[in-house]
Formats: sequence, C-alpha cells, structure tokens
Amino acid sequence: MARRNLRLELQYDGTDFHGWQIQSNLATIQGTLTEAIRSVTAERVHVIASGRTDAGVHALAQVCNFLTESKIPASSLQKALNSQLCPAIRVMKIEEVASDFHSRYHARAKHYRYCLLKDKWCSPFDYRYVHHYPRALDLESMSRVAEQVLGEHDFSAFCDADSEVESRVRHVLSSFFVFDTRRNLIEYNICANGFLHHMVRNIVGTFLEVGKGSLGVGSVGTILESRNRSNAGPTAPAKGLFLVSVSY
Amino acid sequence: MARRNLRLELQYDGTDFHGWQIQSNLATIQGTLTEAIRSVTAERVHVIASGRTDAGVHALAQVCNFLTESKIPASSLQKALNSQLCPAIRVMKIEEVASDFHSRYHARAKHYRYCLLKDKWCSPFDYRYVHHYPRALDLESMSRVAEQVLGEHDFSAFCDADSEVESRVRHVLSSFFVFDTRRNLIEYNICANGFLHHMVRNIVGTFLEVGKGSLGVGSVGTILESRNRSNAGPTAPAKGLFLVSVSY
Repeated sequence: MARRNLRLELQYDGTDFHGWQIQSNLATIQGTLTEAIRSVTAERVHVIASGRTDAGVHALAQVCNFLTESKIPASSLQKALNSQLCPAIRVMKIEEVASDFHSRYHARAKHYRYCLLKDKWCSPFDYRYVHHYPRALDLESMSRVAEQVLGEHDFSAFCDADSEVESRVRHVLSSFFVFDTRRNLIEYNICANGFLHHMVRNIVGTFLEVGKGSLGVGSVGTILESRNRSNAGPTAPAKGLFLVSVSY
Repeated sequence: MARRNLRLELQYDGTDFHGWQIQSNLATIQGTLTEAIRSVTAERVHVIASGRTDAGVHALAQVCNFLTESKIPASSLQKALNSQLCPAIRVMKIEEVASDFHSRYHARAKHYRYCLLKDKWCSPFDYRYVHHYPRALDLESMSRVAEQVLGEHDFSAFCDADSEVESRVRHVLSSFFVFDTRRNLIEYNICANGFLHHMVRNIVGTFLEVGKGSLGVGSVGTILESRNRSNAGPTAPAKGLFLVSVSY
C-alpha cells in the first residue's frame, strides 16, 4: 500500500525538552511527537525534521515529515495530535506532500533568531526566551561584525570541535541585528543554507565579545579564517535561540 | 529602633503558584517572597500586597510593602532578592516609603487585563497567558456590554456567593475591549476602586456568553441588578488574567 507523506509545521517551547532528537527516558520533541502519532494512528513512524534543535532551543516553524499508512485526513490528524501533545508543542500546519519530499535533504535555507535582553531585570514572561545580558554593548560594532559572516565560508571556528560533518563550508545569506530600543531587546537574525552544531550560538557568543569590547571589529574575519574554535567566543545559552523558518 | 517601610513592585508568572497568599506546603507568591526576604535579611516579615491574586493569575506590577529593621540599601536588597527568587517572580522596583504607607489600604484603583486568543491553535509561547477561545464571537456586542458595568454598582452577581465582605459595591472607572485583529488577540481592560473575589473572571465569563450569543446585549444590566451570582456566566480561567497596575 502506498504510504502518504505528511509535512508538519511545528512550534515548540524547547525549555523543558532535551532537544529534537529522540532519546530513551528523556523528553524530546521528536520522541513526544512520535508517541503522539503512535497513539493516534497506532503506527510507529520515523519523523524527519529539517534539522535537530538542541536542548532548550525553540521553534516558530520547524518543518518535519513522516510516511504513514493512516488514512486519517490531515485536518483531523492535526486536531488529534494537538489534543495528545502537551501545550509546549503545537502542530500549526499539516498537509500531504509528494512522496519524495524530505524535510532535511530538501531544505534550502534556514532562518534562526537569537534574542538578547539588555534590561536590568528580566521579566518572568521573558526569561525562557531571551539571554539576559544587562551590560553595556557597542551595538554599532556588533552590527558591523554581523556582516563579516556573510557569504560562503568554512565555519570551523564557529563549530563544535568534535562535530563530525563532511564539510564545514556554509553559505550565510543574511546576518543582521535588529535593536528594539523601547523594549531593550536585541535580535540577531541569520539565514544560511545550513548550520553546523552550535554555529549560531557560537557566532552570537563571539559577537557579544565584540559588543563588550573584548574583541575588535576586525577580529571576526581573522577568527573565521583561523578555522579554530578556540579563537571564537563562548557558546551563547540555548534559551535565546529560535528556529524561525525553513525554506524549500 | 524605627523600622523602614519598603515598597516593592513585583512581576510574576502565576502559572506555577497557588496564588498570592501564603499557605503551608504550597508554593505561593507571598510565601516565596517572604522566604527570600528571610534568607537575605534574617528577618521574618509580613508582606502586605495591594490585594491577593488567585492561583494562576499573573502580575505586571503588583505592589506590596513590608516593615524591616534591615539597613541594607534598597538597590542592594533588590539585587539580593532577585538572585534568591526563582525567575518567575521579579522585584522590578524597590524604594523606601513613608512609615504609614499601606499597599492595600491606600490603593485607590487597580487595573486588570484579561487576554483571550481566538486563533485556531494556541502557540506554545502564549498558552500560559491567554484563555484560548477559538470560537466565533460577536465583538461589537461584547464592546457594548463592557460599558454596562461602568460606574458604581453592587457587584454581587459577579462575586463568588460565599465571599465574606462588608460591601459588594465597587466603582468601575473603565471597562473596554481592545481587539488585535492581526494577532487574533482580545484584551479586556477593567479599572476599579476595588474588586471582589473572581469579579473580573466572572465578568469576562459573562461577556463571553454575550459574545457567543447565549446572552443578549441588554442582559448584563439585568444580571447586575439581580445581585444573584447564578444569573451571570461561568468564571473564566485564571491564566488569562493580569494585574496590570495599582494606583495610589
């Protein structure tokens, strides 16, 4: 029997999850979703995402897909899954797609956003979703270095040293800061054809070093060229990171 | 020794608390704050708030005060308290005030907001802070009935029947809806010189009955005049309610 290929768009608050990837005895997004699908369809499916998100990272529109023999209409399935899932995970969209659609292989670009809060005190309504950083930052320098990661580069300097990937070359399509001065919020947006492990958080951690003056504006190009992780800044906390969208 | 009177402004996410009032073996705002003050000043103080908030209700600027013999400067105390408190409670402001200031007795008016989300699906980032109500609502009728609670009335019909208070007369200074059509969010704002137990949530529950057509536009005045709780609508869930500010 031909199986249907279903494409889902998910939102999730990553705070209480050990990331996307299924792990025994730990709450993960993939594990929780797989279990909800099993309880609705009685099938144990393999859910593929556009990419893994780490523990604590959030998603505004993660894309995933799975093959199923279930005949439940997409809209009924969405309703059933959302009533099974905890409110921290929502299926915002579900549709049947071509049988060869693969949410990871076919992803052309991903957009991530990192949120920093400069307020002296972090509101109880924000603390799960921002990196609270109540220190003086040179926003102009940060805007300038954001441009230095644009284009195709080997991002080894911003990738976990033990990461096993064939190539560390990625193409950054956009990289810019948005400063919401009224709310004291700093948003960093980056769009690329792919990301290495901890790449956004390592980039943000390095930009913060520039913002506080520990690294010069010219240093990011040098760090990038060095391909050496130890030259870059620390990994910024997961809680400020959102997967905003995936382009196909 | 003359004790200092300290006035605090608090934000809290009420989701994981059993309301303001201290209770043994239950996490409450007053209990958690009292314990933090004890751990910083070694004093067991009595913290007075502008009013109690129920389990699950949030605050953007709850006002409270307490008398202390501690000589710790207000700004140092704020820092110490915020490092003791969980991130769901934040002391946003702390100042020394006249010895006779009383956050409950001297409150002249309070502003509450109730948030309703009409979207089909409730985002993981909103579910703690809105009452998800994905049904058709007659917003014009709701706006019209909001005006009917303005002025001085006996609000017995919107007060828990077992509530023991001397007078159930309150003066409502403002009462209006704001519709954010882009976000499908409905905000109800009410300001009064005081509130009875569950009063805002009972009013909102009744307005929702009007919005869905179960009650007519003229009914709210009749319900108010009846002074009978059983004529009004159900109590709306706590999670959508915010204490916005207190005026002195």
